[in-house]
Amino acid sequence: MVRIGIIGAGRIGKVHITSISTRIKDAVIKTVADPYMNEETKRWAKSMGVAHVTKDYKEIIDDPEIDAVLICSSTDTHSPISLEAIRAGKHVFCEKPIDHDVEKIKEVVAALEGTGLKYQVGFNRRFDHNFEAIQQAVAAGKVGKPQVIKITSRDPEPPGIDYVKVSGGMFLDMTIHDFDMACFLAGCDATEVYVQAANLVDPAIGEAGDVDTAVITLQMENGAIAVIDNCRKAVYGYDQRAEVFGSEGMISISNDSQSRAVLSNSEGVTAEKPMYFFLERYMEAYGKEIAAFIDAIENKKETPLNVMDGLRPVLMGLAAKKSYEEHRPVQISEIN
Amino acid sequence: MVRIGIIGAGRIGKVHITSISTRIKDAVIKTVADPYMNEETKRWAKSMGVAHVTKDYKEIIDDPEIDAVLICSSTDTHSPISLEAIRAGKHVFCEKPIDHDVEKIKEVVAALEGTGLKYQVGFNRRFDHNFEAIQQAVAAGKVGKPQVIKITSRDPEPPGIDYVKVSGGMFLDMTIHDFDMACFLAGCDATEVYVQAANLVDPAIGEAGDVDTAVITLQMENGAIAVIDNCRKAVYGYDQRAEVFGSEGMISISNDSQSRAVLSNSEGVTAEKPMYFFLERYMEAYGKEIAAFIDAIENKKETPLNVMDGLRPVLMGLAAKKSYEEHRPVQISEIN
Amino acid sequence: MVRIGIIGAGRIGKVHITSISTRIKDAVIKTVADPYMNEETKRWAKSMGVAHVTKDYKEIIDDPEIDAVLICSSTDTHSPISLEAIRAGKHVFCEKPIDHDVEKIKEVVAALEGTGLKYQVGFNRRFDHNFEAIQQAVAAGKVGKPQVIKITSRDPEPPGIDYVKVSGGMFLDMTIHDFDMACFLAGCDATEVYVQAANLVDPAIGEAGDVDTAVITLQMENGAIAVIDNCRKAVYGYDQRAEVFGSEGMISISNDSQSRAVLSNSEGVTAEKPMYFFLERYMEAYGKEIAAFIDAIENKKETPLNVMDGLRPVLMGLAAKKSYEEHRPVQISEIN
Amino acid sequence: MVRIGIIGAGRIGKVHITSISTRIKDAVIKTVADPYMNEETKRWAKSMGVAHVTKDYKEIIDDPEIDAVLICSSTDTHSPISLEAIRAGKHVFCEKPIDHDVEKIKEVVAALEGTGLKYQVGFNRRFDHNFEAIQQAVAAGKVGKPQVIKITSRDPEPPGIDYVKVSGGMFLDMTIHDFDMACFLAGCDATEVYVQAANLVDPAIGEAGDVDTAVITLQMENGAIAVIDNCRKAVYGYDQRAEVFGSEGMISISNDSQSRAVLSNSEGVTAEKPMYFFLERYMEAYGKEIAAFIDAIENKKETPLNVMDGLRPVLMGLAAKKSYEEHRPVQISEIN
Repeated sequence: MVRIGIIGAGRIGKVHITSISTRIKDAVIKTVADPYMNEETKRWAKSMGVAHVTKDYKEIIDDPEIDAVLICSSTDTHSPISLEAIRAGKHVFCEKPIDHDVEKIKEVVAALEGTGLKYQVGFNRRFDHNFEAIQQAVAAGKVGKPQVIKITSRDPEPPGIDYVKVSGGMFLDMTIHDFDMACFLAGCDATEVYVQAANLVDPAIGEAGDVDTAVITLQMENGAIAVIDNCRKAVYGYDQRAEVFGSEGMISISNDSQSRAVLSNSEGVTAEKPMYFFLERYMEAYGKEIAAFIDAIENKKETPLNVMDGLRPVLMGLAAKKSYEEHRPVQISEIN
Repeated sequence: MVRIGIIGAGRIGKVHITSISTRIKDAVIKTVADPYMNEETKRWAKSMGVAHVTKDYKEIIDDPEIDAVLICSSTDTHSPISLEAIRAGKHVFCEKPIDHDVEKIKEVVAALEGTGLKYQVGFNRRFDHNFEAIQQAVAAGKVGKPQVIKITSRDPEPPGIDYVKVSGGMFLDMTIHDFDMACFLAGCDATEVYVQAANLVDPAIGEAGDVDTAVITLQMENGAIAVIDNCRKAVYGYDQRAEVFGSEGMISISNDSQSRAVLSNSEGVTAEKPMYFFLERYMEAYGKEIAAFIDAIENKKETPLNVMDGLRPVLMGLAAKKSYEEHRPVQISEIN
Repeated sequence: MVRIGIIGAGRIGKVHITSISTRIKDAVIKTVADPYMNEETKRWAKSMGVAHVTKDYKEIIDDPEIDAVLICSSTDTHSPISLEAIRAGKHVFCEKPIDHDVEKIKEVVAALEGTGLKYQVGFNRRFDHNFEAIQQAVAAGKVGKPQVIKITSRDPEPPGIDYVKVSGGMFLDMTIHDFDMACFLAGCDATEVYVQAANLVDPAIGEAGDVDTAVITLQMENGAIAVIDNCRKAVYGYDQRAEVFGSEGMISISNDSQSRAVLSNSEGVTAEKPMYFFLERYMEAYGKEIAAFIDAIENKKETPLNVMDGLRPVLMGLAAKKSYEEHRPVQISEIN
Repeated sequence: MVRIGIIGAGRIGKVHITSISTRIKDAVIKTVADPYMNEETKRWAKSMGVAHVTKDYKEIIDDPEIDAVLICSSTDTHSPISLEAIRAGKHVFCEKPIDHDVEKIKEVVAALEGTGLKYQVGFNRRFDHNFEAIQQAVAAGKVGKPQVIKITSRDPEPPGIDYVKVSGGMFLDMTIHDFDMACFLAGCDATEVYVQAANLVDPAIGEAGDVDTAVITLQMENGAIAVIDNCRKAVYGYDQRAEVFGSEGMISISNDSQSRAVLSNSEGVTAEKPMYFFLERYMEAYGKEIAAFIDAIENKKETPLNVMDGLRPVLMGLAAKKSYEEHRPVQISEIN
């Protein structure tokens, strides 16, 4: 039985609390810490079987009974708390990104060395039924040698401007998932990034120094070319598609919808929109990533996504930023 | 070069004139006859390369230069003109149905005997790309032994009440195509018919003594069960689907639309409606059935649909009528 | 907090134990009874938080602390245990069918009268996302007045012959779900049933006196015609589709698959098969039906499916059996 | 009645001969010229109603009875014959590209000035039912302001190496259609091109100095970003898709197939492959582009694609070539 402490009881923290208390048999949440812990969250946590709640995450770090820590706090705390947890001998599951600063991620890499501790990064999409199916088909050689990889990732609506300002920019906040996915699907790293981007959705995003629409081309190590298209707002919902085209065929995935109902009437033949909210769309995947983390701890396996998998998309995101600023293709090696 | 006379220059007559003059190399239309021939039709026929137009179909029957006759006149004239044409030594393509009266069809059967003349009935759907694909898959054993055959056939709107009154009823006018299709797909005859029908679309149809909505169950000779559902009005267009389910799988067809465009917006994910008008939907098939008829004449082959294929669905239609009236399953052998 | 006893720890019993222990907050399983209770099941039940296991279901009936009973035992025990539980003042959730004998169901109806106890029957499909969507669309008038209702229900493989022999026949065992669904979608009862059925899948099923393939026509009270097609074996998986066609349009549902991946290669464009196993396909629905039952108890609401909803499809099944035997349409009123 | 001369009786020349002789009422082919004219082609042309065939295209240029010329000869002859035809006072339909050399296209532009002659370029896809539907939806504002335009264009197999060598390279030979389509869908010009390309399909193509796989990013004048992905070989057929994503929604098209048949069996749920051969896929579009050309002549309208529409994609192709060679984004203005 793995004893868990969860740091951060915001949206994603609550998702993990729910998953662990309802779907995972081999783990128990001992403590949940959040500086903004209130009575409502406290009551809800208790109802989910959480033994203890606190405002101070140090209670988790210092608790010798806790085996593993889930870091679900704000991005700027990810790498410092990772370091504290590792030094306290705890396994760590850290939400993405580990840090916007490559050096700080490397400190985490260094801290882990020789400890035997498990470290997993929260790229939940790898655990989604659709992305899993397409990756497995590629890995099984169903499309032959990959030649073109396409990822479409559009949010149903942009985050608030306050969030945009601290997000690290679209490439490190949103595209980072797609960078990870491109490597996951290709089965290798990218060597170069080129960005064409614009501020088309909301002028306030531009004023905050960010873009909201982009087409990003990646040269992959295995020769394939990947292309990601992003937008912060799609009126029809959360658009999450991918396609891998290779020498022997193409595998693609379309969006999930709430049901398979189709209405034919005088207006047309209308299916449901893609599921709108990312927590609903990926609820199953969030459960599976934590189950994989627990499994890695219990059965002394590698985590499916280790600290290097957390570093790679940050490098790509920083290269993307540079490409956008300098309007030229940028080598990943220029960043690292 | 097959010289053709066309009797009837209404909607379907014009379709055949167009097909022959634009798509068929080995046939030429010598004469078009229609009792209501007017100046506009005359001009149009000339522009299509028709040599001669007349109000009197006897000119076609009596013309020794004409090899083949297309009978596109009103249903009640199909069998008498068939007889005249056969007696004049002409090949005949006859629109469905040959007659509502089985005895009259049998006269045509008898008249053909020993003549070597080609006789083809106008069940155009057999020549449609979708129905051809499903039939070929079944015939090639792709679904194993057929067990359940389903046909959905719904018109975009009901015909005028005047037509309903002389149509012979929905089963002989509309379902007759589906009866032919059920046998085409099953590769055998039906032995029994059961009808559940109602007047749900327009009370005027009920007042004219007809139904407009039906579910018709057929016992096929090969053991399969077929079910047809009909309606005289589908607000979303002309609904023409089929499915054959067997021991090794299922093959199904969906509707054709004008394009494959799909619009995703805040209302949903909307594809185009099925094509609305039967002449547009089956234009290609109309051309192919005439090409097959010409081919049978020129190359002394069997027509793909002979006079017996014209008799069979009429027997099924009459059995359906009896089943509806007596509210019980009716054997085809009770009719024949 | 509703305290529950579960009678029967077979396949479906285990499904409900899992749902309650992982997904339902307001209920706790006190006792699970099964005459074949073994060590493995015992251990598993403990791991799911079940307080007590026994071979004797009377311990549940006699336990004053238990509020509600789930009857998941063999069909022949459904009505007698229902009666015992009701007499002991317990709410009852009973798997379908309540009984094959209408009189015994009526005893349950009578026993419930005046007790205020909740009684729910296990027609899980009503809680499925696809069937819910189509029913809600119909109820919301999206297709206007329903005219034709079509249900396709095919199992991936037939049950064992031993089960077939005690199943009550395909109509009471398998079609019973579709009978319930037809009424659910139409929003009314059926008045008449006509069956065309055959033994096409496995001769052993025929030797056991049953059929395995059927097309069943229903006259619904509201004028619509419904048609169900069943088969005990579809090589491509569990086929669960429905369509409601009405004066203003059509709503239809297709099958769920494990993912939305589509492979295009030299063989064709291939999507995944429908989900194969009914427990996997309807896992979510099984959870929702129990949640609704608990909600009805706690909040003193009507259960979404009461004892009369359990009686109706049995009447339809018996009418179907009679229709098959006498080869004629049978009124529901002939059975009741 | 427009009298036509056709120069070049190869594959595409034959397509136009067929279209004009079978589908277009207001035009007649007087002469077909081809330096390799043989007996077989001669006989076939006669059967299509062509009055005269010759090896010498000058007979067409010099014939005062001929109103319009279709240039279907090899690419290097397009601009010189265009000039000759224009100087002889003839309307011109010219297959793409007009020339690989911008200066030569500009000579054609200059020659046309003040003549009132019609000049149309053969970008057939604009006349395809799918591309028409998506363009019309965009133009009608159905997706709001366009933000991202995606075009996938993959051939079923690469051309022969001899052709590759004289083709002008993939960007001028194959992508040129997609460059035209991007502008057609966006409703404006591109300002910048960035290419990521590779030789992945056949080393012989690389040895011939060309690429066979590419992802091409375009900055459009209206702010939208377009991305084209090309490959010379897709094992599943001719892949022709597009998507326009905008502020109010997304419109997309999928591939045409021979039929809408879908086979469900133990392997999966398999639809037909996209149509394989471009002449079959776009046969209808080829007819419609010629009809539009004839209509422009007869009714003194603008051609839907004039000489400037022929220049634009050549500029884009040359920019793409430069981008590939210099590995940087290239402005269209650098070329022009």
